[in-house]
Amino acid sequence: MKPAQFAYEGLERIFHERGRLAVCTCLIANPDGMSFTALQDACALTDGNLNRHLHALAETGIITLSRTRGKGRPTTIVRITASGRARFLAYIDELETVVRAVHAVDENEEGARNLRLATSS
Amino acid sequence: MKPAQFAYEGLERIFHERGRLAVCTCLIANPDGMSFTALQDACALTDGNLNRHLHALAETGIITLSRTRGKGRPTTIVRITASGRARFLAYIDELETVVRAVHAVDENEEGARNLRLATSS
Repeated sequence: MKPAQFAYEGLERIFHERGRLAVCTCLIANPDGMSFTALQDACALTDGNLNRHLHALAETGIITLSRTRGKGRPTTIVRITASGRARFLAYIDELETVVRAVHAVDENEEGARNLRLATSS
Repeated sequence: MKPAQFAYEGLERIFHERGRLAVCTCLIANPDGMSFTALQDACALTDGNLNRHLHALAETGIITLSRTRGKGRPTTIVRITASGRARFLAYIDELETVVRAVHAVDENEEGARNLRLATSS
């Protein structure tokens, strides 16, 4: 085994949190932006949790927040930035690498186990 | 969009940490167990970090730790349990769902963008 084969340095910590993963997937699906409330419904997050995630994502330039004032109450619209989208898709590629690696070693192990059973009988 | 479409409740928190993800992938690849040192090299973790991850995984029954005493220094051998393996593979399936969801919405968005460009020209 090569050293540090499984270090997974491409798994950017900012995305590797269940809530933020959900938020970014939603925002990729809705590039024109989503309201705070719609995001909250789609991701099943509390006000406080969603707020904290949005601030972390905005600070690192992954999303932008803007307030709109219509007839009703002011609404916060959340959008993913172009660079945020690129970074998130790179993170997803790395997740795919992890999934493939596990499937590969798992299938090898199944194969090795079957071989041991076959030769021992 | 259905409510809480992206809640990702199957992403068990015990596995959703970069270091523990690396450790479990290694252990799936090496079902006869790995020494502490070999794990550390493969996952690029410090002594303290690896120790903390192993204790968390052992407490939840995902791995077992055993000490062997040979001629040299005593060695800790780490093995994944049968239930730990099943839970980890279920987590990996959920990760695969996330990857597919992102690819699906991303391709839809590409399609929609191309259509807008085509119809506006």
